[in-house]
Amino acid sequence: MRALCWDGEQLTLAEDRPAPDPAGLPAGWARLRVRMAGVCSTDLEILRGYMGFTGVPGHELVGEVEAVAPGGDERLLGQRVACEINFACGACPTCRRGLGRHCPTRSVLGILDQDGCFADYVAAPVVNLRAVPDEVSDRQATFTEPLAAAHEILEQVHVQPGSRALVLGDGKLGLLCALTLHAAGAEVTAIGKHPRKLAILERAGLHTRPLAEARGQLTAARDHDLVVEATGSTAGLELAMGAVRPRGTLVLKSTVADSHSLSLAPLVIDEVTVVGSRCGPFGAALSALARGAVDPEPLIDAVYPLSRGLEAIEHARRPGALKILLDPLAE
Amino acid sequence: MRALCWDGEQLTLAEDRPAPDPAGLPAGWARLRVRMAGVCSTDLEILRGYMGFTGVPGHELVGEVEAVAPGGDERLLGQRVACEINFACGACPTCRRGLGRHCPTRSVLGILDQDGCFADYVAAPVVNLRAVPDEVSDRQATFTEPLAAAHEILEQVHVQPGSRALVLGDGKLGLLCALTLHAAGAEVTAIGKHPRKLAILERAGLHTRPLAEARGQLTAARDHDLVVEATGSTAGLELAMGAVRPRGTLVLKSTVADSHSLSLAPLVIDEVTVVGSRCGPFGAALSALARGAVDPEPLIDAVYPLSRGLEAIEHARRPGALKILLDPLAE
Repeated sequence: MRALCWDGEQLTLAEDRPAPDPAGLPAGWARLRVRMAGVCSTDLEILRGYMGFTGVPGHELVGEVEAVAPGGDERLLGQRVACEINFACGACPTCRRGLGRHCPTRSVLGILDQDGCFADYVAAPVVNLRAVPDEVSDRQATFTEPLAAAHEILEQVHVQPGSRALVLGDGKLGLLCALTLHAAGAEVTAIGKHPRKLAILERAGLHTRPLAEARGQLTAARDHDLVVEATGSTAGLELAMGAVRPRGTLVLKSTVADSHSLSLAPLVIDEVTVVGSRCGPFGAALSALARGAVDPEPLIDAVYPLSRGLEAIEHARRPGALKILLDPLAE
Repeated sequence: MRALCWDGEQLTLAEDRPAPDPAGLPAGWARLRVRMAGVCSTDLEILRGYMGFTGVPGHELVGEVEAVAPGGDERLLGQRVACEINFACGACPTCRRGLGRHCPTRSVLGILDQDGCFADYVAAPVVNLRAVPDEVSDRQATFTEPLAAAHEILEQVHVQPGSRALVLGDGKLGLLCALTLHAAGAEVTAIGKHPRKLAILERAGLHTRPLAEARGQLTAARDHDLVVEATGSTAGLELAMGAVRPRGTLVLKSTVADSHSLSLAPLVIDEVTVVGSRCGPFGAALSALARGAVDPEPLIDAVYPLSRGLEAIEHARRPGALKILLDPLAE
């Protein structure tokens, strides 16, 4: 099969990567025909060495279940599915607590010890697959994973209708978080650097403000119930801490590996709750897509056939680029 | 009246500090005869310049209501009371939200723009006073404020019975947090440096471990539902982050003003919730004292008459000292 392959130094388009063998699948696993895949900022980080990953990257996809391992659950055969990316052991104390997404021995699709979906085919445990409702297009369904990450906020924080929410960062995840909180009834203001991206939110009925203009005023007011830090920069945290109200909630969505250097005393004095937030519930995301609560279509910048995958990655790397999709079925 | 006075450079025992004048009290205020006061680590910080405070320090007390401003609520006259330390405006959006302890224009007893209780008399708003139940001694009642701070954890975090809690730091606040969580039904392990202090917890039925022995093992296990950081040092946060389980909760009780230098990415990856926690509910603390759920008596190292106040402060400064009380009624 065709696959984008990362050897730790170079990304190439292989034409003859062995596809997952239906007969050789581990018990409980399935083989998917990839219908469409999305390029995430994490993929670009991986291509800079993040996680020390080698193999086929890619973890946002919609696929069709083509085969399951002998004796496995066949109910999803032939169906379109999204795939939860954390492959958990299912047996450890963390899994038994219902926190499989945090299983300490998990592999992660296209990120940790598991070939991903920038390919014609991909293998995954059947328990990780979620049927995509008919009303959700392939283009929309590739957003299930990042939209689930945005919905993780709603799983972790009680967002009250009418609460004042601030989203810092207008990258793809920031936009999806803003749209998700808006759909949940919060009064959302989004802060970013890119007029083109903020315009997407404006058209969806959200308030937005350019970062340069907002900075001083946010800190002066300190009146946001909820602040989502999705800038991906260390400077974002300080801005977020300045904008949240006493006893408010600050959600961290950026896995900024760089060290922060700041005093956390303001968090204690103002009794702020800081919530680290990562992967989220696929069911909630698919439901939001199916009922049109969040429409990710305006976030799509381009769709490339898999044969032009290297070009697609280059496009995704351009400053300000939004979602780039890969279509293995197109020519 | 007598009062310990801090002029920004020196602490002295004044003999002729004007006492609050009952006739000149602001509307809604009361004058208290101080029955007993406690020396807190924050007081020692103030005597090193913290908050830029000058005047009479001291914010932990039990007193008797001697007079109220004309036309004020007289129901507490003659009663023993504890005093909530945040004097809020009562009218701003923060106060109207029920968060008077975070009022942006608040003064704070003995800490910010308000003379404190290391004196014969002190003035405070009647709305800040809480009657002390008869079964609570003066010695115990001086712990109401720090015990309320410990109970703030229960107000902010849902501590489930049997949950695994870890308290880092065996200072006074750390001990009270450990005792409070134990009384709430958590399985508490406390980590500290002082065998004498840990022994207090052992006698109360808690598990304890010396820091030197625990360090590596905590990080290896990462299995605590709740970790309370009460060390007062920047190193504590890193240890706390290593000991909390995925999706667990980390309570920050130290207002460490020093800058941390560390990556917060682990908080995001493990979806940890960090809760800044400061002042707490006096009612809950008084109730815990009244029903004997928490007994602070073993934390008392010495009681000094107010006339020996300077000596008392010196005692409180000794490494490893626990609670020092000031008794203005003694000679």
